[in-house]
Amino acid sequence: MKTHNCGELNAKNANQEVILAGWVDTLRVSGKIGFLLLRDRTGLVQVFLDKNLTEKFKDTRRESVVMIKGLVNKRPENQIKKEMKTGDVEIAAKEMELIAEAEPLPIELDENSTTALDKRLDYRFLDTRRNKIQAIFKIRSTIYKALVNFYDKEGFTIINTPKLTTIGLESGAESFVVNYFDKKVVLAQSPQFYKQMFANGGFDRVFEIGPVYRAEKSHTTRHLTEFIGADFEMGFINDENDIMDMAEKMMKYIIEKVKTERKDELILLNIKLNIPQVIPRISIIELKKILADKGKKLTLDDDLDAEAERLIGEYVIKEFGEEFIFVTHYPVKVRPFYHMRSDQKTTRSFDLLFKGVEVCTGAQREHRLNILQEQAKEKGVVIPKIYEDIFRYGAIPHGGIGFGLDRITQRMLNLDNTREAVLLPRDVERVTP
Amino acid sequence: MKTHNCGELNAKNANQEVILAGWVDTLRVSGKIGFLLLRDRTGLVQVFLDKNLTEKFKDTRRESVVMIKGLVNKRPENQIKKEMKTGDVEIAAKEMELIAEAEPLPIELDENSTTALDKRLDYRFLDTRRNKIQAIFKIRSTIYKALVNFYDKEGFTIINTPKLTTIGLESGAESFVVNYFDKKVVLAQSPQFYKQMFANGGFDRVFEIGPVYRAEKSHTTRHLTEFIGADFEMGFINDENDIMDMAEKMMKYIIEKVKTERKDELILLNIKLNIPQVIPRISIIELKKILADKGKKLTLDDDLDAEAERLIGEYVIKEFGEEFIFVTHYPVKVRPFYHMRSDQKTTRSFDLLFKGVEVCTGAQREHRLNILQEQAKEKGVVIPKIYEDIFRYGAIPHGGIGFGLDRITQRMLNLDNTREAVLLPRDVERVTP
Repeated sequence: MKTHNCGELNAKNANQEVILAGWVDTLRVSGKIGFLLLRDRTGLVQVFLDKNLTEKFKDTRRESVVMIKGLVNKRPENQIKKEMKTGDVEIAAKEMELIAEAEPLPIELDENSTTALDKRLDYRFLDTRRNKIQAIFKIRSTIYKALVNFYDKEGFTIINTPKLTTIGLESGAESFVVNYFDKKVVLAQSPQFYKQMFANGGFDRVFEIGPVYRAEKSHTTRHLTEFIGADFEMGFINDENDIMDMAEKMMKYIIEKVKTERKDELILLNIKLNIPQVIPRISIIELKKILADKGKKLTLDDDLDAEAERLIGEYVIKEFGEEFIFVTHYPVKVRPFYHMRSDQKTTRSFDLLFKGVEVCTGAQREHRLNILQEQAKEKGVVIPKIYEDIFRYGAIPHGGIGFGLDRITQRMLNLDNTREAVLLPRDVERVTP
Repeated sequence: MKTHNCGELNAKNANQEVILAGWVDTLRVSGKIGFLLLRDRTGLVQVFLDKNLTEKFKDTRRESVVMIKGLVNKRPENQIKKEMKTGDVEIAAKEMELIAEAEPLPIELDENSTTALDKRLDYRFLDTRRNKIQAIFKIRSTIYKALVNFYDKEGFTIINTPKLTTIGLESGAESFVVNYFDKKVVLAQSPQFYKQMFANGGFDRVFEIGPVYRAEKSHTTRHLTEFIGADFEMGFINDENDIMDMAEKMMKYIIEKVKTERKDELILLNIKLNIPQVIPRISIIELKKILADKGKKLTLDDDLDAEAERLIGEYVIKEFGEEFIFVTHYPVKVRPFYHMRSDQKTTRSFDLLFKGVEVCTGAQREHRLNILQEQAKEKGVVIPKIYEDIFRYGAIPHGGIGFGLDRITQRMLNLDNTREAVLLPRDVERVTP
């Protein structure tokens, strides 16, 4: 229904007749003439309305949908609006048609809107009409695409594993129960089990993007009950360093892609991205010593808490100029039974921190059934038969990582709440719209 | 742990020393020497075992994992094995190590295995060690990637919408109920509601790949309770033809990509893909006349059944040389309330058939709230307030399609059951492994 996109017009289109359609961003009447900022997914353009059109449309409410036929005029050099991508042109409307009138808006959509997040989420589809909010999700979309292309390029098979399942490797207490005809099943808490299954199932390298469910009664800015996990698993590895190599390469790749393909959105959000050079790999034992010097005491068996992660984030920026760090050699005590051990107390596992927050967890997995059984026993875990079976018919040395697409987006864009990176977040309170 | 992949070796590697690791595909002992076919995700290579290695490893069971150090020897011209990608070389093993011994296999893995599908699914991770099975999922992975790149290129934002929800636009009877803390919620039966929400939410063009849940008690080769849906929605359209244009372009794109990037797998599966030229768009009214001539009588209000689809598939191949056809103008009676109507009895909707089976459904949506409300009332549907809200604040003319990644893969590869295109299918009986 339109010949051009609003945000793509520029001086090259001068003197063309164009048909545009979009949302009324603002309509400013000045005397008898009007200036309409028309918006579509590509951006804004200014439309000049003469006396007749102004008279007819002056009361059109914000967010109404209109169609314009008009002429592209190049602005004189001294009238170019530098703050707008299309600032070197203005459209002189010849005809205008109202496609859909908007009712008064239930939330504020201004740049500096102070509407609370909760209310914004109730009307998320209006919230996303704001350029900055839309920019977040366009960047997230580019991360998604970059992940898919990265793993494809590296020989991974993109798989989809079931979310309706009867088994999980995490604690059952945090599972959502589904009524499945006359049975009860649960929503998968991670694709861990399945990705190990198919790495060993001949694919060797598998990758999945899909929803992950956690019935945690947490009320933090980090925890969601449904989030989009990205997981890979790869085989024929020497040790966990092969996994970190792949994770590092991936991070470089996605940041590079976002930098290249989402320039406008990054400017809009005022984000400068740094491509990691070499991500330091430092053992948690070493880091605990450094933390102790900063007054943060942790025992050898402790996990890192949020404060420790933040301090490590500061340390790695200061010492290495990097926003990322691999924290390696987590103690057996804080890792699940299926992580391979390098000695009695230490696992071949790691976390990746990004700007002082954990964004991904990985490890080499134990693929020797007898050792796996011992480790499960020690942790008081009963291994499901089908999980055991994976290791009976030729299991390969393998490992992988899991991370949240939402969390990566949040850290990359310095958002203060993971919910800002999710269109419709789900948590203990919220399961609408 | 390996320097090369098995299936990538060829005469160019002659005289190189390589380290390989993989699964024992076959081990044939001939007198005192042995011939090992070693397999990894890239394919097979033949390894020659001398007297000592043969003696030591002759009882190694199929699917055990081994590591080989050896020399790549070019085969003489008259001994090249044309049926193998790596048929121009043979590896002379110098060292061999057993990484993981396989137990006797619970299912047959031969090329001509007659193990029933049900049993194969119980041990799917062994089933996928077969080259032909793996080929299906590698092609599916390429379709996935192609979809993501296609929609990105066309200006779509890739979104993830929640699967835990309280509202649906399809019949509630077919929803799975989830115990969500002290509430009951359902698993989304489609992203229909949400994709319309965000097409109107300023993104204009949105695309999603994600699971879709149907609590249908069907026992057919087509129906699954969980499948991977691919859905797009786009705005500022003239009519349903814009949607069909996009769907047609997408089909050409993905078939082209599979043809180019999965040559080996297509050969293995004996599939010749045809890129559609112009997909015919024929009204269901017209097609019913043609069907009547073939003895298949349907009333104006009837939907097409499987036999009708099959006959139309034959017709379109015969008359147009195309495997695809858009069946347009479905009667109001068989379409949901939110499909836009072109007159009292006819909707602006269509189905896309591929080799005589419906693979996708699309339509222009009704975006005028008053008409939408009337249509809902007529169908006896109570519209959820939040769905109504989408149309209150500047709704754009829009439409889209939904299809199953599994189904597209199945049709493309002529598989006799959709389950063959799903790693771990879910249906009324099966919710494991």
